[in-house]
Amino acid sequence: MLDFKITRTDLNGSARSGQLTTTHGVFNTPIFMPVGTQATVKAMTPQMLGEAGVGIILSNTYHLYLRPGADLIERAGGLHKFMNWPRGILTDSGGFQVFSLKGLRKISDEGVLFHSHIDGSRHFLSPEIVMQIQQKLGADIAMSFDECAPFPCSYEEATQAVRRTSLWAKRCCDYHRRPDQALFGIVQGNVFADLREQSAREIVVLDFPGYAIGGLSVGEPKQDMYRILDLTHHLLPADKPRYLMGVGAPEDLLEGVKRGVDMFDCVLPTRIARHGTAFSHRGKVVVRNATYAEDFTPLDPDCDCQVCKNYSRAYLRHLVKADEMLAHILLSYHNVYFLIKLMQEIREAIEDQKFEQFYNHFYENYNI
Amino acid sequence: MLDFKITRTDLNGSARSGQLTTTHGVFNTPIFMPVGTQATVKAMTPQMLGEAGVGIILSNTYHLYLRPGADLIERAGGLHKFMNWPRGILTDSGGFQVFSLKGLRKISDEGVLFHSHIDGSRHFLSPEIVMQIQQKLGADIAMSFDECAPFPCSYEEATQAVRRTSLWAKRCCDYHRRPDQALFGIVQGNVFADLREQSAREIVVLDFPGYAIGGLSVGEPKQDMYRILDLTHHLLPADKPRYLMGVGAPEDLLEGVKRGVDMFDCVLPTRIARHGTAFSHRGKVVVRNATYAEDFTPLDPDCDCQVCKNYSRAYLRHLVKADEMLAHILLSYHNVYFLIKLMQEIREAIEDQKFEQFYNHFYENYNI
Repeated sequence: MLDFKITRTDLNGSARSGQLTTTHGVFNTPIFMPVGTQATVKAMTPQMLGEAGVGIILSNTYHLYLRPGADLIERAGGLHKFMNWPRGILTDSGGFQVFSLKGLRKISDEGVLFHSHIDGSRHFLSPEIVMQIQQKLGADIAMSFDECAPFPCSYEEATQAVRRTSLWAKRCCDYHRRPDQALFGIVQGNVFADLREQSAREIVVLDFPGYAIGGLSVGEPKQDMYRILDLTHHLLPADKPRYLMGVGAPEDLLEGVKRGVDMFDCVLPTRIARHGTAFSHRGKVVVRNATYAEDFTPLDPDCDCQVCKNYSRAYLRHLVKADEMLAHILLSYHNVYFLIKLMQEIREAIEDQKFEQFYNHFYENYNI
Repeated sequence: MLDFKITRTDLNGSARSGQLTTTHGVFNTPIFMPVGTQATVKAMTPQMLGEAGVGIILSNTYHLYLRPGADLIERAGGLHKFMNWPRGILTDSGGFQVFSLKGLRKISDEGVLFHSHIDGSRHFLSPEIVMQIQQKLGADIAMSFDECAPFPCSYEEATQAVRRTSLWAKRCCDYHRRPDQALFGIVQGNVFADLREQSAREIVVLDFPGYAIGGLSVGEPKQDMYRILDLTHHLLPADKPRYLMGVGAPEDLLEGVKRGVDMFDCVLPTRIARHGTAFSHRGKVVVRNATYAEDFTPLDPDCDCQVCKNYSRAYLRHLVKADEMLAHILLSYHNVYFLIKLMQEIREAIEDQKFEQFYNHFYENYNI
């Protein structure tokens, strides 16, 4: 099941606020989904995710299929129960990960043969198998199996990926049958405008309850990403949620919403946290820097999260320098909170018809 | 300031329940103190420590002195504020760590010259300097600078360590002047009964508000530890708290309380957690073991902590195998909770005059 309703729009209809109803809850959009690759958002407990205001997380089909296995998770009662996360979950299709395994894979129209990055064992994924796996995992939203072409790639490669993505989307549609799980389609086409148009047309005809824009944020210049978003959102049905995959930089969330996107996911907040970097309203803070050694002010004076209320930059720097796990825990919490809060603020701006002011104000303060 | 009152005794007076009043709170004894070496209990937030029922933690003077430095922590407003821990803190003297730096140190009656394990830089600690540092850190309880002889060591070495420990204890007493901080004395003497007696006599005469039993749990057979405890607690004033340093195995907490100990600290619960091992009422659970791959029961069916209520052994094993930080977080929480709860149960047994039954019942179930 999935229901989506738009509550308000701004910027002549392109920026949208809405509400997404899933089997495990109702969530305000636009929404950012932190990534829990291996059935855990790294360095955060489910309780911390809840306190940070997280509604939906993304988990990775490829990783869970290999370890601990979809059958085990099904026997555990599904992914929600297995990982003790009662709210929304979206699982990706594994396509992105499998196509990133350079040299370890063989692609045909039937599916992809590949070797596990863990133990080298051989595996085969097809649209049907990916649907089986995702239905066993039991996320609220499943994704179609797609072919994600790299950047840069030739027009021919991108054409091939679009063809296969459409072929596989149809097979996913035909095979998927779990009623409490919504299946989203994915638009590919790399940075080629006509291929994006073709892909959107072929995917939309299958009438998915939601559409993802895949194959962006894979190394292309930001201007390419914005250009493709500019044209893609006009090609997708206005009344269905639009999900931009793999995007999580604060400025890109803003640019995405401006271009009609409702959902985002990215490892960025938790990954940069583990490298000792924090988001702030002024830009990124590299906590390790010596300049913070005796800085007893909060990470981000404009943030009201538990970390900014209770800890100083000096303490966080000490934890980073001493290689303490609490550094990862606290910085991950702050970074996730920061993006969740940013999305709430963007949403409020849309509701108040002030998206443009919010957008301008953001860039006045934020140092990219 | 420090106040200690014994509320009840059992086993003809040797097992005691009591109440310890410090600048940062009133705590029931017997008590277990988790270790926060570098101003953080590894993989646990202060909030988690609070939820696990932790009253006092121990932090390490040696580590904090080297990084981030006592002056910095003083300028931050003291250790409590720096690390956002509003309850009790005890700092050790750094003696144990300095004497563990094999080959890197030179000891005289004046103090210890040593090289930092972090960057090799030269440092000198004396009783007076250690008092200065601990007063800057501002813990509720500070420890005298002592010489901890290794196990095994010769009678002559142990004699020398006792002589210096007494000399230094006097100098610590003379130098210490922070009124909101209590200074404890430490009894040494290795496994030699007459040296323990001599050390206790020389330390007790200085009239500390509390006494630690040091130099045990350093590799000696358990029977030696129990034998030394049997004789030492009779040598210490009955109305002062007794603290057995570095002890945290469940069975040793029980044996310690049986022999008149009120306070314990140890890295054990958090250290074994990071190696994927959990305490349980039946003994240790090596979570990584394949036998738990599809075990959907809790870590310890007799434990009511958040981890045992919400997660299965199969999930925890998955986290350990996948090398996820959440494994460390959840297992550390459970292990700390387990010891805190054990101490509460021991306390209740003493209050009910049922320590012996509790003791026997524990060993019937617990697989060492």
